[in-house]
Amino acid sequence: MPGADLPFSVVRTHHGGLVVTDLERSRHFYVDLLGFVETERTPDALYLRGLEERSHHSLVLRRGESPASDHLAFKVASEEDVDRAKAFFEARGAAVKEVPAGAEAGQGRAIRVMDPLGFPMEFFFAMDDVERHLQRFDLYRGAHPMRLDHMNLFVPNVQAAHDWYTKELGFRCSEYTETEEKEPRVWATWLHRKDSVHDVALMNGLGPRLHHLGFWVLDTASVLTACDVLAAAGHTASIERGPGRHGISNAFFLYLRDPDGHRIELYTGDYLTADPDFTPIRWSLNDPRRQTFWGHAAPPSWFEEASPVLDLEGAPIRPTDALLSDRPHFVT
Amino acid sequence: MPGADLPFSVVRTHHGGLVVTDLERSRHFYVDLLGFVETERTPDALYLRGLEERSHHSLVLRRGESPASDHLAFKVASEEDVDRAKAFFEARGAAVKEVPAGAEAGQGRAIRVMDPLGFPMEFFFAMDDVERHLQRFDLYRGAHPMRLDHMNLFVPNVQAAHDWYTKELGFRCSEYTETEEKEPRVWATWLHRKDSVHDVALMNGLGPRLHHLGFWVLDTASVLTACDVLAAAGHTASIERGPGRHGISNAFFLYLRDPDGHRIELYTGDYLTADPDFTPIRWSLNDPRRQTFWGHAAPPSWFEEASPVLDLEGAPIRPTDALLSDRPHFVT
Amino acid sequence: MPGADLPFSVVRTHHGGLVVTDLERSRHFYVDLLGFVETERTPDALYLRGLEERSHHSLVLRRGESPASDHLAFKVASEEDVDRAKAFFEARGAAVKEVPAGAEAGQGRAIRVMDPLGFPMEFFFAMDDVERHLQRFDLYRGAHPMRLDHMNLFVPNVQAAHDWYTKELGFRCSEYTETEEKEPRVWATWLHRKDSVHDVALMNGLGPRLHHLGFWVLDTASVLTACDVLAAAGHTASIERGPGRHGISNAFFLYLRDPDGHRIELYTGDYLTADPDFTPIRWSLNDPRRQTFWGHAAPPSWFEEASPVLDLEGAPIRPTDALLSDRPHFVT
Amino acid sequence: MPGADLPFSVVRTHHGGLVVTDLERSRHFYVDLLGFVETERTPDALYLRGLEERSHHSLVLRRGESPASDHLAFKVASEEDVDRAKAFFEARGAAVKEVPAGAEAGQGRAIRVMDPLGFPMEFFFAMDDVERHLQRFDLYRGAHPMRLDHMNLFVPNVQAAHDWYTKELGFRCSEYTETEEKEPRVWATWLHRKDSVHDVALMNGLGPRLHHLGFWVLDTASVLTACDVLAAAGHTASIERGPGRHGISNAFFLYLRDPDGHRIELYTGDYLTADPDFTPIRWSLNDPRRQTFWGHAAPPSWFEEASPVLDLEGAPIRPTDALLSDRPHFVT
Repeated sequence: MPGADLPFSVVRTHHGGLVVTDLERSRHFYVDLLGFVETERTPDALYLRGLEERSHHSLVLRRGESPASDHLAFKVASEEDVDRAKAFFEARGAAVKEVPAGAEAGQGRAIRVMDPLGFPMEFFFAMDDVERHLQRFDLYRGAHPMRLDHMNLFVPNVQAAHDWYTKELGFRCSEYTETEEKEPRVWATWLHRKDSVHDVALMNGLGPRLHHLGFWVLDTASVLTACDVLAAAGHTASIERGPGRHGISNAFFLYLRDPDGHRIELYTGDYLTADPDFTPIRWSLNDPRRQTFWGHAAPPSWFEEASPVLDLEGAPIRPTDALLSDRPHFVT
Repeated sequence: MPGADLPFSVVRTHHGGLVVTDLERSRHFYVDLLGFVETERTPDALYLRGLEERSHHSLVLRRGESPASDHLAFKVASEEDVDRAKAFFEARGAAVKEVPAGAEAGQGRAIRVMDPLGFPMEFFFAMDDVERHLQRFDLYRGAHPMRLDHMNLFVPNVQAAHDWYTKELGFRCSEYTETEEKEPRVWATWLHRKDSVHDVALMNGLGPRLHHLGFWVLDTASVLTACDVLAAAGHTASIERGPGRHGISNAFFLYLRDPDGHRIELYTGDYLTADPDFTPIRWSLNDPRRQTFWGHAAPPSWFEEASPVLDLEGAPIRPTDALLSDRPHFVT
Repeated sequence: MPGADLPFSVVRTHHGGLVVTDLERSRHFYVDLLGFVETERTPDALYLRGLEERSHHSLVLRRGESPASDHLAFKVASEEDVDRAKAFFEARGAAVKEVPAGAEAGQGRAIRVMDPLGFPMEFFFAMDDVERHLQRFDLYRGAHPMRLDHMNLFVPNVQAAHDWYTKELGFRCSEYTETEEKEPRVWATWLHRKDSVHDVALMNGLGPRLHHLGFWVLDTASVLTACDVLAAAGHTASIERGPGRHGISNAFFLYLRDPDGHRIELYTGDYLTADPDFTPIRWSLNDPRRQTFWGHAAPPSWFEEASPVLDLEGAPIRPTDALLSDRPHFVT
Repeated sequence: MPGADLPFSVVRTHHGGLVVTDLERSRHFYVDLLGFVETERTPDALYLRGLEERSHHSLVLRRGESPASDHLAFKVASEEDVDRAKAFFEARGAAVKEVPAGAEAGQGRAIRVMDPLGFPMEFFFAMDDVERHLQRFDLYRGAHPMRLDHMNLFVPNVQAAHDWYTKELGFRCSEYTETEEKEPRVWATWLHRKDSVHDVALMNGLGPRLHHLGFWVLDTASVLTACDVLAAAGHTASIERGPGRHGISNAFFLYLRDPDGHRIELYTGDYLTADPDFTPIRWSLNDPRRQTFWGHAAPPSWFEEASPVLDLEGAPIRPTDALLSDRPHFVT
């Protein structure tokens, strides 16, 4: 039985927590322009969800002094899995913090840990159900964000990070990128628990840093609509890259920078990865179709900039240089 | 020079006037759900336009006791053409009424006449420019109606109506339907002044009555969005027919009934008809691909129901039975 | 761990087997018009797959005297699960037949059983990988069928069938329909193993019969393209119902009848069901938005006609009348 | 009557003639990949048309030693207009050449002239009707090119060129770009005869040279499909710019370079310009939304490279430097 021998069972990437400097400005960007659904607003935080999501939030924006990501959350398969996760991390000597039910609005009890890659990860099971807007087409706006799909992380040592996720947490690899050395090394990897291309992508880079949160949109038309709406509202500058298509994952993508510089991907074009014998697809780092099947070249910012992550006390974590070169040789 | 010998020059179908019984209910339908732009509201009327339209209105909803169409307006090429139109109709002994500038909000001086087909037609040149919403993608809603495209009229004698429009007013025929008799008769005809498939379609039926006003939408996706939005808002019953594709005109269509039963077509899929030597396309009445290239059969209401038209004093005009059978033999 | 105590682990609905009377005619329909990829053709069978599928086939058309479905196949999680499935069915006294590797082209060893619902089900693990056409956009045609998504079965006793799939085989319910009696009974149910709305839908009706095989297409535009292509090629009559949207599952659908009358659904608009605590969505049988969120009413054939299924020796199985009324009261 | 006092009446931009070095390679690009319809092939030329076009060709590819444009053709309103055009140009002392019927396959008698801007322009009325593929959806491929929409020309003196087209040939201006000097000068202008944004765009640059031929495609999805198909077929490098949206004309665009470097625009998103009192839309050269409402910056090649044009004897015409700076200051 797949996963039967895991220390605990991760279901999927569930939500991200971002520190932003102006909640109202962020609300305008995510809700008015991109079409996220606002579930709840407190003086210090904004809880958002996508149109198909029934759980309370998939994006938490918390007011703070400077932009960062303060936690990235996996849903686990049961309350027992929260306990098991806690025991697992404690046994490894990791920093573990209990988050009582309700500390994050709508959410049951959770644990937060500093994982071996240096990211502040949250594991929880329970969250309040709220109204699903999937068939409230009269309320659709902007990009039609359906749900959080994945997180993309800069890590200095992709091989180590890949091993952590696949060997310890039971993630499966759908696609990966290798260097073109005689003995190729993993430069990036796409890993999943749910039956899609990824829940977590790990890319070689100065890390730990959050490269982007990827939100699933309905179709390519929604991505174009996002461009039109952002441009009409005077936010053309928030479009960093795209639209275009990646060879990797077949994603039709658009990368945006929110008002604090956090990078958001609007993403469609996945495929089903349910089969346990799915053979991971290998790409070569300098294959131009890997990064950009078609579309303009990625700008340098896309390789260089990312959101810092915070430790469990809220202090920024100092990132480490990447082991490998941080971009293909054709990107300068 | 095409048109050089015409009594006056019609540019295109410009706007329609509908009498509705509840302005607020109509506003909700047209503005909130379908996405028309509201230009102006008076106690007695609502002036709407499409997203690409720069002139003040393409649809006037006037409050009244019972649903009807009180005028259908052509834009002519100049103020002189308004004079010429007046002289032309007076010379024919038609009822002609001057509409002073401003009587219809935003509109210059016009004339209204009862045309030989029994319709209350308006001819005008000047209308106020207002802000075009074409690139205000942040304000797009619902069906993304771009502009009024055409009017479709039930007339009892299509051949006579066809001759009126083509021989007297200089319309050109893009497509037409004939009966399958030994000596075929025209059952319907698609006529244009602008470079599209039609400004006016004339269909055999109990008339004069207005079958529908056709609004151009951006693409097929907009038509599907209209369905989703209407259904989500509890207005599924307003969808009378479609989505589907006509053989005639290649239209991808959706027919709606507004809260007063007026029929609106959302329409995309036209083609360019600029060439003066364009050979009209002939269809046979009982060719099933003519009416419905694909899509469910039209319901009987589509053949039977239409908006009554009013004379220049606002009295309903009693329609006359059609000369030919009012529908293909495969529709029962 | 979900599924840890199951007799064997089903991954997903993987392929369907249909008996057709003219392979070449079927090939034209599925490959030339709808855009399926042809993997292999033998004198007696045609093996097809969708554009994203890497395994040898998701649809097997076998030449035969009269239309039927001869097997419906689930992929299981390992070779051991094939053994476990065999033991499980033998212990229940079911008819079980070994299908040696290669008997079905490209497929490893499988078992076929008559399940308690009277369907000829296949369980297998291994199948040859073939080239994935996901990024061969230059070869896309017709409806852009991506992959087999689900099978929809007519069963006379939905409650019993629901219990079989959920209690014995570990399927989870995403949505279901109940009658409006004082003590409501299940009229239809949507069940899944993969993280989508369904692998198997069970509908109250004369059964066992195969109502349809549902293929996932990329987007709503692909569904419209299918209509246009079929109509252009003279196959309008193969469109039985749609396009429209179901309330249930949020499917944007088109139902086609292949040249032998087998029903195929082109389907898009699903949502993610990975969360183990997903609360099934309840619909009332006579809620008009359940069946048709919008779109024309389903024709009687949609409720009445379905493909017969064969037993392991190839003899047709005589269906039994449904326990409940076979359609909502508003469909006549 | 608009145009009544013109020397002759131009209907619209009708076709372009390109010299290519390898007909088979060009056929693969235009027909197999982009989906143009092949009307006729001779040893020396290939005649192509779009899906909605009924006339014999809108693109002529002629085999030659080096890439160039050998003629750009306007359809005029009648045979008499061909005579009038001839008389008009002869009276101005221009080089005029008679092209007998059939010299260009499918085309009636034409004249070719060197216009005052230095372009080899053709004026003709008659062309053979061929089968329209508008409803042959089963044959649609690639980008779904519907029809030739416009030609975009580099001219060194835009004001002079603007005056030529508007004052002498009766074109109307839909949009234009001015410099930001105290006394602004016209930097680019969009001119039309048919009821669309343009038949001819004139841009400040080293000229006379043909910047691109713009083909109308059905919708934004067709543009994305073109990208996918080109990339899948190994022709990613033919994508020079886009997809993106221009502020000017509201075009959703993709610029391609054919195997000889000729630039083709795939274009959708126009609006109706039938009204004779349409007020031209003014843009400022350095308004970033003018060129790129959204989308990556245009590469330098887009401002620098263009197809040379040939004189009536087939000799290349030496272009002249632009009067004004050849690009906005934000493009380097």
